[in-house]
Amino acid sequence: MQTLPGFREFYPDTCARRNYILETWRGVARRYGFVEYDGAVVEPLGLYEKKSGGELVGQMFTVAAMAEPGEIKGALRPEMTPTLARMVAAREREFRKPMKWFSVPNCFRHERQQRGRLREFYQLNVDIIGEQSGAADAELVAVLVDTLRAFGLAENEFVVRLSSRSAWQSFFRENAKRADGAALTDEDEYAFFQIVDKAERASAEKTNAALVPFGLDAERVLAFMRSKVPSVDLAPVMADLTARGLGGFVEVDYAIVRGLAYYTGVVFEVFDRAKTERAMAGGGRYDGLLALMSDGKVNLPALGFGMGDVVLEKVIESLPAAKARMEAWCAAQRACEVFVVVAKEELRPQALSLVQQLRDAGRRVDFALTEAKVGKQFQAAEALGARYAVLVGEEWPQVKVKTLATREEQLVSHEAAAALLG
Amino acid sequence: MQTLPGFREFYPDTCARRNYILETWRGVARRYGFVEYDGAVVEPLGLYEKKSGGELVGQMFTVAAMAEPGEIKGALRPEMTPTLARMVAAREREFRKPMKWFSVPNCFRHERQQRGRLREFYQLNVDIIGEQSGAADAELVAVLVDTLRAFGLAENEFVVRLSSRSAWQSFFRENAKRADGAALTDEDEYAFFQIVDKAERASAEKTNAALVPFGLDAERVLAFMRSKVPSVDLAPVMADLTARGLGGFVEVDYAIVRGLAYYTGVVFEVFDRAKTERAMAGGGRYDGLLALMSDGKVNLPALGFGMGDVVLEKVIESLPAAKARMEAWCAAQRACEVFVVVAKEELRPQALSLVQQLRDAGRRVDFALTEAKVGKQFQAAEALGARYAVLVGEEWPQVKVKTLATREEQLVSHEAAAALLG
Repeated sequence: MQTLPGFREFYPDTCARRNYILETWRGVARRYGFVEYDGAVVEPLGLYEKKSGGELVGQMFTVAAMAEPGEIKGALRPEMTPTLARMVAAREREFRKPMKWFSVPNCFRHERQQRGRLREFYQLNVDIIGEQSGAADAELVAVLVDTLRAFGLAENEFVVRLSSRSAWQSFFRENAKRADGAALTDEDEYAFFQIVDKAERASAEKTNAALVPFGLDAERVLAFMRSKVPSVDLAPVMADLTARGLGGFVEVDYAIVRGLAYYTGVVFEVFDRAKTERAMAGGGRYDGLLALMSDGKVNLPALGFGMGDVVLEKVIESLPAAKARMEAWCAAQRACEVFVVVAKEELRPQALSLVQQLRDAGRRVDFALTEAKVGKQFQAAEALGARYAVLVGEEWPQVKVKTLATREEQLVSHEAAAALLG
Repeated sequence: MQTLPGFREFYPDTCARRNYILETWRGVARRYGFVEYDGAVVEPLGLYEKKSGGELVGQMFTVAAMAEPGEIKGALRPEMTPTLARMVAAREREFRKPMKWFSVPNCFRHERQQRGRLREFYQLNVDIIGEQSGAADAELVAVLVDTLRAFGLAENEFVVRLSSRSAWQSFFRENAKRADGAALTDEDEYAFFQIVDKAERASAEKTNAALVPFGLDAERVLAFMRSKVPSVDLAPVMADLTARGLGGFVEVDYAIVRGLAYYTGVVFEVFDRAKTERAMAGGGRYDGLLALMSDGKVNLPALGFGMGDVVLEKVIESLPAAKARMEAWCAAQRACEVFVVVAKEELRPQALSLVQQLRDAGRRVDFALTEAKVGKQFQAAEALGARYAVLVGEEWPQVKVKTLATREEQLVSHEAAAALLG
């Protein structure tokens, strides 16, 4: 009886690593003044069908009640943005703008099994709602950069590749011309973004063939793609990030267009510099989505990014300093602070009272639940990473307080031990 | 487009309360030396069918892939114990005994909508595996008591009602006699536990009728139920808890038998003393479950409890001191520490640099993303609960540091401000 393919279980070691990622995500988002929200794991199917594109619908898991088979109740969330859009549209009047919100949901996608992809994963979602200015794009990229820095990733280890859907849109509108002479549609534009998305990996012949209906060719598209000149919307974002001292973490790269249909302005993806892994995070502006989700009732500019835990953890594992930081955090989480050694079984009630006092004072305390040799108890203390051992034995009402790393020992009254370690 | 019935979404205020509960759970479990694990949200259906009883199978949600409708992939976990049993059975040799593990999963049950019941809820699970002695039962009850104390609940606000399946088993085997003269079976015993479970609320006539097949009557059953004498397995647990100073939080109460079939020894439930709510937590020994789940390969004694967030939060809300503690935690979580006021727009780059320095130093910092009147910026600082405002204006390279609560103000160099607040 195993877990289902693509699903994970978290034994204490892996659970600590997951918690390290979730807690680091939360810590940085809070430093930036973002507040946490969450949605339901199971959402109405229609929530995902409504969104333009619907790219993830085919990868969804549906949920039914055992007692009412065949009647689909909902879907496991494949991403967080539709939930966020729904929540914001319903109650946005109650919140100051810009709203700076984050979430760390688990999401579910029925994907083909491959490296860096699982069917259940965690995803940091950071969004700013109600701010049109590029200052918001810069704030969003800054929190993204600092999230990765918080994991110990350095400037030479990752890069945020910044691009602009509006710049590509201008390029398309200025240069494209439909062979049939008809006006360019939104669908044409989205089809063009798909071609751009593939142009780096595809052959020039293939790209040329795809571009024919728009009167364009690979050479012109690739020339624009390779230009490094910040577009009119990217220039202030770059200037803002430079003022923060974060300019070295970002570069303009028009090869990024993002797959989802709903992006409208600045878009970006983050890669490890070694480029051995998929994108660690991606996002951008989606100014039209709230209006779409609320049937036009709420029209607020918005932008955000998502960062999954699976690729991130692989990158951390591949970088010695980042890996050491993660392991130190996990060891500290696990460690017991004080181990109370019961050297004389008759003194167990007194030992229990001391354990309770230390725990009441907030210390992480453990002890042998049943009679055991003193040597065995010290072994357990070491195995649990305890800093101190307190020996309750024939010296009672005094106890021996031992610092395990240095083997230093003091004999003090049990009240003094409780005060000293509490 | 609402959430599905019985599912919750967490706006920032409710998300903070949920996090308070999850973090308090984690903090106390760690103080007791428990380590965190987790399983997959979607598990194979068979995992739940295997367990004796299968009480929750009818309440399960099944999961299928949109791309392969009709083919059930798994179930949303309705509880954590089967996952734990599976994980322990698979790798128990790698872990020191006793294993002290905890988890804070969200679980899913397709229940009728009623007070204190939702279809998705969080549940603290605390388990000890590999220890037969009553010292483990006492440790488990102690961590349960301290979990509730950590929420600010006092001795006169909740009680752990301790009982024993083995005591009831002895009673049954000594006193029951099947009318048909056949030997008593495990099924008889479980049927008897169900009668006991209902006896407090049912009429004597109804209980008597149900007891006829076992040659028992309500009077004898209720007399045993109301006796307060600790059974042979409860006495050492009570003594241990008394030595810890926790005796006042527990009482012997044989009215508790617990619904699930797999319990074998000490069992317990926790109630608010006002008894206005359902049980806040329940658990006990399930010494046979690991063997059952592993087809006899792993046979370890085990015990644990579950505590849901829904009833707990209702109880907290009803107790002023506990509620105030929760609200203080949530306010502290949300609060921004430093708000940087940009009084001269030309100095925005300098302000951004200061923001970055303070955030790098770990402070929670916010600022107005776009030009705004100084008064408006101070309003935002107050609304965000900021402790300090730093005004970047005409005094540059000096800045004004203002303590918002006291209105105290100092004029210092921006480097000194960064050092002072960083």
